[in-house]
Amino acid sequence: MADLLEQAKAVKTASRALAMASAAVRDAFLLGAASALEAHGAQILAANAEDLAQHGASLTDAARDRLTLTQARVQSMASGLRQVAALPDPLGEVVDGWRRPNGLDVRRVRVPLGVVGIIYENRPNVTSDAAGLCIKSGNCAYLRGSSTAQGTNAAIVSLLRRVAVEVGLPEACVALVEDTSHEAAARFMGLSGYLDCLIPRGGPALIASMREHATVPTILDGDGNCHLYVCENANLAMALDLIENGKTQRPGVCNATETLLVHSSRAEAFLSGMAERLKGVELRGCPRTCAIIERAIPASDEDYATEFGALILSVKVVDSIDEAIDHIAAYSTGHSEAICTDSVHFANYFVRSVDAAAVLVNASTRFVDGEQLGLGAEIGISTQKLHARGPMGLRELTTAKWIITGQGQVRT
Amino acid sequence: MADLLEQAKAVKTASRALAMASAAVRDAFLLGAASALEAHGAQILAANAEDLAQHGASLTDAARDRLTLTQARVQSMASGLRQVAALPDPLGEVVDGWRRPNGLDVRRVRVPLGVVGIIYENRPNVTSDAAGLCIKSGNCAYLRGSSTAQGTNAAIVSLLRRVAVEVGLPEACVALVEDTSHEAAARFMGLSGYLDCLIPRGGPALIASMREHATVPTILDGDGNCHLYVCENANLAMALDLIENGKTQRPGVCNATETLLVHSSRAEAFLSGMAERLKGVELRGCPRTCAIIERAIPASDEDYATEFGALILSVKVVDSIDEAIDHIAAYSTGHSEAICTDSVHFANYFVRSVDAAAVLVNASTRFVDGEQLGLGAEIGISTQKLHARGPMGLRELTTAKWIITGQGQVRT
Repeated sequence: MADLLEQAKAVKTASRALAMASAAVRDAFLLGAASALEAHGAQILAANAEDLAQHGASLTDAARDRLTLTQARVQSMASGLRQVAALPDPLGEVVDGWRRPNGLDVRRVRVPLGVVGIIYENRPNVTSDAAGLCIKSGNCAYLRGSSTAQGTNAAIVSLLRRVAVEVGLPEACVALVEDTSHEAAARFMGLSGYLDCLIPRGGPALIASMREHATVPTILDGDGNCHLYVCENANLAMALDLIENGKTQRPGVCNATETLLVHSSRAEAFLSGMAERLKGVELRGCPRTCAIIERAIPASDEDYATEFGALILSVKVVDSIDEAIDHIAAYSTGHSEAICTDSVHFANYFVRSVDAAAVLVNASTRFVDGEQLGLGAEIGISTQKLHARGPMGLRELTTAKWIITGQGQVRT
Repeated sequence: MADLLEQAKAVKTASRALAMASAAVRDAFLLGAASALEAHGAQILAANAEDLAQHGASLTDAARDRLTLTQARVQSMASGLRQVAALPDPLGEVVDGWRRPNGLDVRRVRVPLGVVGIIYENRPNVTSDAAGLCIKSGNCAYLRGSSTAQGTNAAIVSLLRRVAVEVGLPEACVALVEDTSHEAAARFMGLSGYLDCLIPRGGPALIASMREHATVPTILDGDGNCHLYVCENANLAMALDLIENGKTQRPGVCNATETLLVHSSRAEAFLSGMAERLKGVELRGCPRTCAIIERAIPASDEDYATEFGALILSVKVVDSIDEAIDHIAAYSTGHSEAICTDSVHFANYFVRSVDAAAVLVNASTRFVDGEQLGLGAEIGISTQKLHARGPMGLRELTTAKWIITGQGQVRT
């Protein structure tokens, strides 16, 4: 605990210097880090090989794959840093401002949060990705990775800290928690006064642990139980494209479509074609769906509440847009909800009625992602409503400072 | 618990209808509520008299005064609602938006949070103030007042609910927690999924209880240990005005100035005049301060860390702006920090280096307040960095929704 607190203090102190660093210096860090990753790739791969030798056998194939670095993956980490360096500086933007009747000039200016904690599992590429986004936005990156990747993460962080010093930033602007026990993770989540924000990059177990232990401000990545509603006025060819893309293009991700809702007047015409097009997808439907699609099996309430993350789709026939909206209100996780329609009326009604981070009209739910929507880089997707909602880019790693300039005004 | 959950569900359901209500209907609620308060003032005063009869004897004079309503105070609650009604609608604003290369139109639009919980102590005027701000911003107001004011609060809420129904809003858009026990407060703070945001209006004990019990998203009002630094280039006459105003105009509030820092080159010239001007103020200073001001007593570390909320000022002589900034970094609560200087260099350096919700140049810390800074109304002052920082107005009671409109785009 003493060690963690010492480290936290050093990171907090470093955040003061980092907040004063120019964009040129912060970008020099990112570009220098990219070159260093390329130049010292062998060193990182060696550390990774040791991690794999020590922990690989105990991991699932998928987890082992996530832990494994290759020359190409290190190269892609370097490219990622260069891409972030090329983005505009989020700091210093005047968010708004005005003059008061008494002559006070008021403005709100974008400033860094200070120390951003990132807690993540396996993937060592998060180490450089997160550090890059944090430093670009003027924040210290305080990282806590998994025990299985600790050797690799330490090698990357040691490289990044050397680059920081080279460009004139404090060494502690990137730091890695040494103790990878669960107890240390809980203590990390409780570093009130040292972590200005803590963001998880991981599965439901990590999120649950944060809900239990975190006393510092957090931005939680939520689940994505996303719906597509095919309205009575939908272009059915378009609707087929949207559900195929939403469900099958990458079924394991949070913005995949999990439930298809169809207006009863189009159910007959749409569902058979859908079943044909989504051949490899298991279909779980309401009684009316099952009457139309022979291979569909009955859907339970739990199916409608489930983010399958797999080639399984739940289907329901509804008699009105209100029934669709009520279903979404009951089962949605507030991530991304889509409507396919050619009716301006129904499109607007859906957009205004549905409470989610993103609402899409005639577009695949798969677009709800920072890079796809134009944020340039993504630190995660928030399903909370405070601070950041939906895909989070550099701007979401900042806060605002009120700057008030007067000529000696006092309050009467 | 069953009752609380039933009520929470009703409020959550009401929030869906409220989110669809036009600004005209929401304003009609505010104006109708103002008239109703005036028309039925006697009823509210009677309930208040009962609360006072039942609990008044057990309260301090200050607390009893906060609990007491008069015809003038009810009138001022009505005026407050009319002022909020006259503010621009915060909803529907397009925060930003752009077109993607694939033709997707992306925009972020301001929408209500949903259900805003307010937990507060004594003052029954918060009941109508908070309800007005919440409804204006399209949110249900879910209120939990103190047991001593419960009768008064219930009378006000019953009036507000009648007005809601009259203007076509769901009755449950304003609700009051019936059980005023501490256990019920803890359960209220744990209504995950029903409260989109919980804001306290109260003292340190309430904030501490929220830190312990709240599992819903919160925006906490923090302490205000505010500093004024009199720089070597300061206009000393102006500095005198600023410290007098900051310390004495209303010493009990969070934006009062608690510590005076003076550059050593001006200490002699400034401090005697200051001691003269702030006659009624107890001064606690560093050794150099005590050498200049005879009546000053030695300041402890704890004094520098204390928000006195009284006519006590701690004073420290520093040898550089960096020493002042370091002192602020060590003791500040991140509320409001001021510099008095005529140097552009030092002003900018201070503004950029100090990490606080508000930084002031040549203006009294007392200005850091929603109404003074032009927000029109204030729901509180946040010393956290996520979501809202500094004075919070209607906009801070909103979130954004991503709206993505396509022509059938799918992701490749």
